Amino acid sequence: MDITIIGAGKLATNLGVELKEKGFHIKEVFSRTARSANRLAELLNCAKTTSFKQINKDSDLYIIALKDDAFLDALPKICNERKDAIFLHTSGSLLMSSFAPYANRFGVLYPMQTFSIDKLLSFSDIPIFIDANDEDSLNTIKSIATSISKKVYHLNDTDRKYLHIAAIFACNFSNYCYSVAQELLENRSIPFEVILPLIDETAKKVHKMSAIEAQTGPAARKDTKIIESHIQLLESNKALQSLYKEMSAQIINKLEQHNDND
Amino acid sequence: MDITIIGAGKLATNLGVELKEKGFHIKEVFSRTARSANRLAELLNCAKTTSFKQINKDSDLYIIALKDDAFLDALPKICNERKDAIFLHTSGSLLMSSFAPYANRFGVLYPMQTFSIDKLLSFSDIPIFIDANDEDSLNTIKSIATSISKKVYHLNDTDRKYLHIAAIFACNFSNYCYSVAQELLENRSIPFEVILPLIDETAKKVHKMSAIEAQTGPAARKDTKIIESHIQLLESNKALQSLYKEMSAQIINKLEQHNDND
Repeated sequence: MDITIIGAGKLATNLGVELKEKGFHIKEVFSRTARSANRLAELLNCAKTTSFKQINKDSDLYIIALKDDAFLDALPKICNERKDAIFLHTSGSLLMSSFAPYANRFGVLYPMQTFSIDKLLSFSDIPIFIDANDEDSLNTIKSIATSISKKVYHLNDTDRKYLHIAAIFACNFSNYCYSVAQELLENRSIPFEVILPLIDETAKKVHKMSAIEAQTGPAARKDTKIIESHIQLLESNKALQSLYKEMSAQIINKLEQHNDND
Repeated sequence: MDITIIGAGKLATNLGVELKEKGFHIKEVFSRTARSANRLAELLNCAKTTSFKQINKDSDLYIIALKDDAFLDALPKICNERKDAIFLHTSGSLLMSSFAPYANRFGVLYPMQTFSIDKLLSFSDIPIFIDANDEDSLNTIKSIATSISKKVYHLNDTDRKYLHIAAIFACNFSNYCYSVAQELLENRSIPFEVILPLIDETAKKVHKMSAIEAQTGPAARKDTKIIESHIQLLESNKALQSLYKEMSAQIINKLEQHNDND
């Protein structure tokens, strides 16, 4: 099976390397910039192009790992004159049906993980959520997904969208909280590394108990004196102050509802 | 050295067990409830009381691990008639000077970690922040702290308060993000465990790069179409919708400032 990868970012890089390692044949890579196309083509030992028009027309599978914003614009150019191929996107939020006007066989392969360009991950424990518009394509996509991960789930567009929002809270927003912590520490010349054991333990805890049960801190204790004093201390940074207020209020509310239900 | 522990919650339990394991003599435990006092006294094989008046008067060190709200009320009762002892609190946010009207020798021993009653942690890698009102007390506190942890830092009241706010973002608020993810998944009957690899990798990433560099997701990509569609999908839960908007806006702002400074 010949695979073309459209995109050369974090996900395209990690997925491309993993597929190659598992014995799939990557025929070509597309990126808008020559630099990214060269980098990934070298990693995958395959052809490359920076022009939508020049992407080969005879791959069996086209995996699209572009930014969501770029995807809809690129879609007609990618699917054009390739009516026998299967097209996949890799996004948590794009509808599978976006392909419908342009392709006969299509689906989704969404690996739920946060990737880096320089730190390649093994996919074996990464949950992959798949979907397809027909049984045959679903089986093809499933066999690709299960060859790289032990955790493959069939999920429809709506569920995958909620899953993506959950991922944004669990990853992007918790990482933003880390970045606030880093800013606060660096402003006092305290090294960020002192907070890593706390970050690690917070992540570990939810393996053993539900997140609501794992909740600690002044808001969980309804310690209003401390909360007020922190809000005062953040007076010079309105954005962080507002986030501190909002988060604390929501934690207090959520725990009250949780305890009422016990 | 005879130690009395005032409090029998998560921190008191973890710290008490660690000190006992390192050979310190825990003389007595106080808790307002008989159940907690019994539980911890049994773990530490020591005396117990539920009455402030009956706490022994001849310990060398009194470690106070009460909720911050309860601390100020309890302080005069705890320090009374024990003028030669050293008093410690274990809080990120209480002023060390709270002790000044009631005691001659006092300080702080703040282990920055999120604790559980049932999952006892080793202190060896937990950063401990200490302070004291005189050189001699500081040395005593330092020798206790370094006997349980490799990471001991001397920090004043103001820096410790900022450190505590940083810890609240890195731990309590990121855990709240996990709990939102859990709620969203459970509403769609998707098991929470699918998101654990993402949570773990997000925490791991900031060991290798700064949090702002590790930032991914629709807000980091300024993918406004996806952000808008998620905000619509959260319409039925105003609290989460408002948090999603606020977090996304702050991530966009923070990355713009970061990139301007490059």
